[in-house]
Amino acid sequence: MAEHTLVGHRVPRIDSLDKATGQARYTADLTLPRMLYGKVLRSPHAHARILNIDASKAERLRGVKAVVTGRDTAGVRWGVFRYTRDQQLLTGDKVRYIGEDVAAVAAEDEETAMEALELIEVDYEVLPAVFGPLEAMQEGAPQIHDHAENNINIHVPIEVGDVEKGFKKSYHVREDRFVDSEYTYCQTEPYAVLVNCDLSGNLEIWTPNASPHTKAKALSNLLEMPLTKVKVRRICTGGAFGGRSDIFPGEFIAALMALKAARPVKLVYTREESFTSVRQAHSMIVDLKTGVRKDGTLLANEIKVIMDGGAYSSTGPIATSVPFLVWEETYRLPNVRFNGYRVYTNKPVRGMYRCHGRAFLGGLGMQLDMIAEELGIDPVEMRLRNALRTGDTQATGSKIISCGLSEALQQAAEKSGWKEKRGKLPFGKGIGMGANGMMVGFPMGIRGGSSAMIKFNEDGGATLISGVVDTGSGNDSMVVQIAADVLGLKMEDVNLVSADSEITPLDQGAYSQAAAFVSANAAMAAAIDAREQILNIASDMLDATVEELGLRDGYVYMKERPERNIWMGKAIRKALMDDTPIMGRGSYMPKIDQTREWVSNPKGQQAGTFSFGAVVAEVEVDAETGQVRVSNVTGAHDCGFAINPMAVEGQLEGSVASGGVGATLLEEHYWDGGQMLNASMLEYKVPLSVDMPQITPIIVESMDPEGPFGAKEAGLWGSMNMFQAIGNAIYDAVGVWIKDFPITPDKVLAALEERNRD
Amino acid sequence: MAEHTLVGHRVPRIDSLDKATGQARYTADLTLPRMLYGKVLRSPHAHARILNIDASKAERLRGVKAVVTGRDTAGVRWGVFRYTRDQQLLTGDKVRYIGEDVAAVAAEDEETAMEALELIEVDYEVLPAVFGPLEAMQEGAPQIHDHAENNINIHVPIEVGDVEKGFKKSYHVREDRFVDSEYTYCQTEPYAVLVNCDLSGNLEIWTPNASPHTKAKALSNLLEMPLTKVKVRRICTGGAFGGRSDIFPGEFIAALMALKAARPVKLVYTREESFTSVRQAHSMIVDLKTGVRKDGTLLANEIKVIMDGGAYSSTGPIATSVPFLVWEETYRLPNVRFNGYRVYTNKPVRGMYRCHGRAFLGGLGMQLDMIAEELGIDPVEMRLRNALRTGDTQATGSKIISCGLSEALQQAAEKSGWKEKRGKLPFGKGIGMGANGMMVGFPMGIRGGSSAMIKFNEDGGATLISGVVDTGSGNDSMVVQIAADVLGLKMEDVNLVSADSEITPLDQGAYSQAAAFVSANAAMAAAIDAREQILNIASDMLDATVEELGLRDGYVYMKERPERNIWMGKAIRKALMDDTPIMGRGSYMPKIDQTREWVSNPKGQQAGTFSFGAVVAEVEVDAETGQVRVSNVTGAHDCGFAINPMAVEGQLEGSVASGGVGATLLEEHYWDGGQMLNASMLEYKVPLSVDMPQITPIIVESMDPEGPFGAKEAGLWGSMNMFQAIGNAIYDAVGVWIKDFPITPDKVLAALEERNRD
Repeated sequence: MAEHTLVGHRVPRIDSLDKATGQARYTADLTLPRMLYGKVLRSPHAHARILNIDASKAERLRGVKAVVTGRDTAGVRWGVFRYTRDQQLLTGDKVRYIGEDVAAVAAEDEETAMEALELIEVDYEVLPAVFGPLEAMQEGAPQIHDHAENNINIHVPIEVGDVEKGFKKSYHVREDRFVDSEYTYCQTEPYAVLVNCDLSGNLEIWTPNASPHTKAKALSNLLEMPLTKVKVRRICTGGAFGGRSDIFPGEFIAALMALKAARPVKLVYTREESFTSVRQAHSMIVDLKTGVRKDGTLLANEIKVIMDGGAYSSTGPIATSVPFLVWEETYRLPNVRFNGYRVYTNKPVRGMYRCHGRAFLGGLGMQLDMIAEELGIDPVEMRLRNALRTGDTQATGSKIISCGLSEALQQAAEKSGWKEKRGKLPFGKGIGMGANGMMVGFPMGIRGGSSAMIKFNEDGGATLISGVVDTGSGNDSMVVQIAADVLGLKMEDVNLVSADSEITPLDQGAYSQAAAFVSANAAMAAAIDAREQILNIASDMLDATVEELGLRDGYVYMKERPERNIWMGKAIRKALMDDTPIMGRGSYMPKIDQTREWVSNPKGQQAGTFSFGAVVAEVEVDAETGQVRVSNVTGAHDCGFAINPMAVEGQLEGSVASGGVGATLLEEHYWDGGQMLNASMLEYKVPLSVDMPQITPIIVESMDPEGPFGAKEAGLWGSMNMFQAIGNAIYDAVGVWIKDFPITPDKVLAALEERNRD
Repeated sequence: MAEHTLVGHRVPRIDSLDKATGQARYTADLTLPRMLYGKVLRSPHAHARILNIDASKAERLRGVKAVVTGRDTAGVRWGVFRYTRDQQLLTGDKVRYIGEDVAAVAAEDEETAMEALELIEVDYEVLPAVFGPLEAMQEGAPQIHDHAENNINIHVPIEVGDVEKGFKKSYHVREDRFVDSEYTYCQTEPYAVLVNCDLSGNLEIWTPNASPHTKAKALSNLLEMPLTKVKVRRICTGGAFGGRSDIFPGEFIAALMALKAARPVKLVYTREESFTSVRQAHSMIVDLKTGVRKDGTLLANEIKVIMDGGAYSSTGPIATSVPFLVWEETYRLPNVRFNGYRVYTNKPVRGMYRCHGRAFLGGLGMQLDMIAEELGIDPVEMRLRNALRTGDTQATGSKIISCGLSEALQQAAEKSGWKEKRGKLPFGKGIGMGANGMMVGFPMGIRGGSSAMIKFNEDGGATLISGVVDTGSGNDSMVVQIAADVLGLKMEDVNLVSADSEITPLDQGAYSQAAAFVSANAAMAAAIDAREQILNIASDMLDATVEELGLRDGYVYMKERPERNIWMGKAIRKALMDDTPIMGRGSYMPKIDQTREWVSNPKGQQAGTFSFGAVVAEVEVDAETGQVRVSNVTGAHDCGFAINPMAVEGQLEGSVASGGVGATLLEEHYWDGGQMLNASMLEYKVPLSVDMPQITPIIVESMDPEGPFGAKEAGLWGSMNMFQAIGNAIYDAVGVWIKDFPITPDKVLAALEERNRD
């Protein structure tokens, strides 16, 4: 497999045509015979006790086929870990945020369902509510959950080395506070779910999701049904960004209604519901204290983060530790103390969003620049001095098996004209850098691996059955590209069956940046297994050894005498006749220290490998209006190996938009207490094409020893670095540090005014 | 696997609840977003040249999205074999029967499609037509196809031994002619097809079918698309009886329209269309000449069959030889000459129906009785003397590896009280016997085998991916039962993914009685492969050898110390963590001499094995009205081994109804030239529950050395024997031989009158 026909080449994605023309089908597009339409009654109160629910009038309305309330849930609660099971997905005793699911109706049509909602009478006893994490942690604050004193959902303490000694030995110490607002995923596709059930107890679910197996397992637990009966089906997912992995009330409620009515039920959220009642990103307050040697080498870090988790745990516990992990995955941190708090408030539930904790990463990346300036060190040099290298061990114990961070930093600096520009541009223009490391795969036990199977058609085509999930980032194309390359086929000759929890083997899905590393490795192994079977048969037919043979363009040929060849379909037919049909199987499990406490107490190898990146942003700041425009982005990313360079570049572009420009400059939610004020596409600002900078992507290939063909990941690149790069560039442009995200014009103006006052 | 928890036990079918409650989904139930409704314009003429088709008005009608005619077919013709490709599935130059597909329309709704049909102007030049095969073979008859002189579609000559010498040596020779009318499958589900296409060139097809792989291959050929792009989906099939295996114009036309409109198209036939424009069973004229020794041993057979094939080949060539094959698979035939002719007429197309050529089988079975009477031999004894036995070789060369025919004959005679009743019942009551052998699997090359895969869920459940197809006979349940038995699971712990040409490996489908023998063998092999993987892992965990371990109730246990055990889910999880996930694969290819000429010139091993059966029917004949009532049926069948005795018995009951009582006494089509007169459920008589006899099934187990657990098949049992048994019983009751099927009251009365006249 020395020469590649597909891998490493720029190839168009297999779903491009369907997506571009609107032919792709999403959950809301589906209908089933006898399908009912569901609607959810939501809490108007941020915090209230439910004294009584009377649904009898709704139940009697003509056309209503099922009404469900908390009474139908058997009190079962959802949480990712045993100790975070705090959410009854259709609430029972209390409501804890405005928009929480109180009851739901399935009816013959949407209008009847909505009419029925108005007939449900709920008696609330309104309780005092709390909306900020600092307030929520105070003595005497309203207690949102009985079990959580001071409303602390999770506290993650991590300590490595001797932090006090580190600070003592430091030449320079600096402390800053960074804060960030809530924002949402704003996927183009609104949340929707369709559930079908049959009398044999099978449940089929279609919903935008990043992992059918994870959804199936959660529903299997919540509904107390075996996994063989819970079938999450493949369906297009219109964007995920971390927000389609967890289980949501909608899936559970639709399943309850389908089971109760014994008919299919579809639930399509309004845009407002998609904003308030699925998931959002955490807001946070980050206190950073950093001590360095005179040369800028990091000696000690003390980090305290307080995150607003909203009303329930969701995947929040992961969001509490991961920002720290990602930081230690970038730089050498000899002495570090981290205290992360996720706090309950009476606001919607926060889950995982792209890389967790942007304020955290952005803050640290900006603080590095502040210290660099104070010490008279170039920010690029500052980063290079602290950057992890191949062979290093991170603070909590992970080994780095491949690392192109230094190269990424150098290349981004070089290609962006860093030396010529940094500190030398006219007032109002600036350049800034950000850098990151990223885990590839979490310690998810059996859910961290992937398996794949390949079967063949008699005409030489193949079907790859893989658990891989594509939420828009091109994973489907990737595994097809790999299998086709290994098998010497064209991409259109390899058919993909994926993302169906019934048919495909276990796979974590589009989660923890593992698809290119784990799912692709499994697909590659299955293809290699099939390849060996084909070569074995062909070696008989061509009277050659397996080693003498190659696969290309659907033919098996002798490498030294390519005119001696057979059509692959012939080998496949012979295998069928010989009763040894070609069926490839393969799997991959990353080499991780599997500990149950990886979230609260990470120790040992935390990921199969790590990717690294650096981004340089150039901005133009209008000192009159406070408006910030990102004009250029030069990003260098160590993705290990670019299976499809076009896809890697596309990932940068996407993350520069949604995690980058949007989250840094535009996106946030406004609140009146617990009431979200801008739950619409008109009022919630995402970057448009006019807001996008010129992007120059640079691919760094560290050829990971474990990755398929050396590949790692390319998912979060820009979104992890743009906060840092833009914040630093603004300082370079106008000389102010904005530590409060998003960096909106009013904040820029206020900072400029303050500086002018000084 | 000595003791079976499931195999050999009476277990309910996995689809019973869905089928009984109406929850099962069929093609006509489906809708897709933007789906169009198709309608077909059919020929009003039995034979005419198409001078011109003007569809422009239809194309301009608002709501019409595609109109297709023969011009859209690129002239491609369908036929099972290269030499029988005679049907352009949307006709071009000519129409050859009333109801033939001339043009089709896809529109936003059914009403618009029907309105559009009326706007299509077709100029016909009506040609003379011919409706009977004897007339069609005469010089000067209208020639239906240019290539077919005397309208002979296929002539199958078979000669074994020295027939002339055989007759010369015979003690007794007898000649008879038997005739049979056309009838139809009359599946409860009308024919329907739904086709979806996308811009990447993928085609999805839902249609009632007995083999998704066969349909996919045919469509792939006809549409010149690779198999990877043609995806025939799993959908419930409401009865097949041989009539859902071939490719039909509907699938092709719906695909053409979907491709043209770039939207999904659904075509649902009316009941009349389902009768006239899919397929029917052949009518035939059978001349039988048989020579025997004094003791009844068969010495020579000369057989001539003329079958009315209708306008096109379809699977007709198979129907021409198979009746003969089935006969040689029952009795020792030392010298035999067979001449089968399938003749084109201007009537709808005839395909395969249960066992091909009932009149043929019924006639031979009745002639045996006639000869027995003439020689004074008991019919049971007559059959026993000629019956094939294990180790025998059939006339054309197939070896019999297991045979319970003699036992079936004896048991059916004994349990029915044959000795006490035969010739001894009062006038009007009678008893008769029929017997059969049956090939299990045709020489279908790569399409004759099956493969299967099994993957496991972390909670111990499994998913079996098998190409098996269930058209109502319980094949799905069968493979689940086998896999669960081998894996020590409950049936509900094994999930089946089947009958999808994209996902499942190649399998011939519900065809040639091969599901229990071939598909089940493959599923069993995959389960055994997985079982070995589980036992290997468990042997480490339990510190025992693989041989010491068993699987039961989801646990691996030590056979000698069952208290030492582990939950299978634990072994599955360990395998996942160890990166050796359990994935079973297995296949089976029957041991057949694969010759391309098996239809026209059968030679060598024609099937993997053969099943055998005998049926005794008791009838009451009302000499006043001619009405025949079948009161009792005692059937004994050598199915090899009964995987699910309840299912084997169910197969007898079904075939006694549809192939048996219905075809022998009730079912036939009436014609006015080429116009079918009774194309409705009201006018086409099938047996109702009141027509059903008391049935006593007897299972004979010859334990086939190749079959899974010894199993062969149980599909056609009653339908092959009831003609013979009823015909013979009527003679026993009232002393007349009716050689013209179906045996309707008028024929009985006429025969009684004639006898009284003599």
